[in-house]
Amino acid sequence: MKKRYFLYCSYKGTNYCGWQIQPNGISVQEVLTNALCTILRDDELEITGAGRTDTGVHAEMMVAHFDTEISFFSFDELPAKLNSFLPVDIAVHKIVEVHPDAHARFDAVSRRYEYRIVLEKNVFAADFSTRIFNSLNFDLMNQAAETLKEYRDFTSFSKLHTDVKTNNCTITHAEWSQCADEWIFTIEADRFLRNMVRAIVGTLLEVGREKITVADFRKIIELKNRGRAGTSAPAQGLFLVNVEYPPFVFYSSSKKSSE
Amino acid sequence: MKKRYFLYCSYKGTNYCGWQIQPNGISVQEVLTNALCTILRDDELEITGAGRTDTGVHAEMMVAHFDTEISFFSFDELPAKLNSFLPVDIAVHKIVEVHPDAHARFDAVSRRYEYRIVLEKNVFAADFSTRIFNSLNFDLMNQAAETLKEYRDFTSFSKLHTDVKTNNCTITHAEWSQCADEWIFTIEADRFLRNMVRAIVGTLLEVGREKITVADFRKIIELKNRGRAGTSAPAQGLFLVNVEYPPFVFYSSSKKSSE
Repeated sequence: MKKRYFLYCSYKGTNYCGWQIQPNGISVQEVLTNALCTILRDDELEITGAGRTDTGVHAEMMVAHFDTEISFFSFDELPAKLNSFLPVDIAVHKIVEVHPDAHARFDAVSRRYEYRIVLEKNVFAADFSTRIFNSLNFDLMNQAAETLKEYRDFTSFSKLHTDVKTNNCTITHAEWSQCADEWIFTIEADRFLRNMVRAIVGTLLEVGREKITVADFRKIIELKNRGRAGTSAPAQGLFLVNVEYPPFVFYSSSKKSSE
Repeated sequence: MKKRYFLYCSYKGTNYCGWQIQPNGISVQEVLTNALCTILRDDELEITGAGRTDTGVHAEMMVAHFDTEISFFSFDELPAKLNSFLPVDIAVHKIVEVHPDAHARFDAVSRRYEYRIVLEKNVFAADFSTRIFNSLNFDLMNQAAETLKEYRDFTSFSKLHTDVKTNNCTITHAEWSQCADEWIFTIEADRFLRNMVRAIVGTLLEVGREKITVADFRKIIELKNRGRAGTSAPAQGLFLVNVEYPPFVFYSSSKKSSE
């Protein structure tokens, strides 16, 4: 009988066309799937991620589920075996059996992203942050970030023509903080629309450059028009850092408590 | 009249054949020299570094001197101009006028290196650390590191057939410490022999794996025979992090106090 597993991994997105399998370009999902199929000798194995990340975006923690009947070695040993097989920019940290109905995408209750910027050239952070040449008013950026929690509809920060039914998200955390010579924007919500974090960061940078006011930032959200927001911030500063699940997901032998 | 300047820079060494200009391969010195010649429009300019770093070794801070008569813009603005011209993996942080006789290599009184290792796969540190697969006894490694300060002749940890007159160095600091999921070896001395830090780290790792004892480590130093030390640790974990100079170097208008 097939069992379901959650796989926790991290990746440096620089050399991938994002998480999702694409016809043109190598994706993280493809490389991970190939590694799992090879190590588990199961050609039909498929993995489903908690969400997509775009080309060049990194993940400190992505969660994906897969099903397999294979159990010819301990799942405690599987991360180490996968890591020797995978390239240096993808790592598997943990694989745990979960409820047979647990779903990495639909059961996730919150996601957290970080966006990192540097104000001085930093040779070690070049792949992992965006350099901003202007000076920025972080007080104003934090005032604008704070207002995000008052809204639900983020059409203004979504890619057009996506297939989602609503543009409603509940943002529970949105704040800029300084860590050594980096400024890190941390944002947490139940869900995110496509391109949403980078569009929010791009618009907050306009606030920081004092090109628009905090009142303008509110207006942009209220207009529900993507054309009014700032340009998207570049991919290399963005990290998916956490995905949270409710406890029932991890009860592998019992039914979902919600059923 | 020509004036002398110290240039403080950092670089990610991954894509360079080291600091020093080489016939085969691109060096940091070459790229920096070309940038300075272009920006200052001075074809004869040459730069002299505080030391060499090998292929793949990084520098958080390298110091180099150069002479030029050109002064058509402020030297405060020069780092920013150079940084826009240089690739993302080389950055200039400061340029200051120094004493006309100041020498980046001969006047340096101490150098500090760090060597970084990780024990788990880390996709973000892959270019900046060495992954060790064994478990390590850091207590023993620190006991062995401590003994380094008792010796002067480090022939055992030097590349053979180099052109230096003595193999004597005064090590003032040598210690492993933990920072998040990295273990960092910090070593400071008045001077280092070629390949010395990587040979010391490689031999300390043998102590950490309990293949040799702290007493064996002492014996290796005392034998003054490179063949007895461990293999060199890989380049990507090594960083030059600081170079110190005595105060007179920075008195641009007066003579060296030692003259």
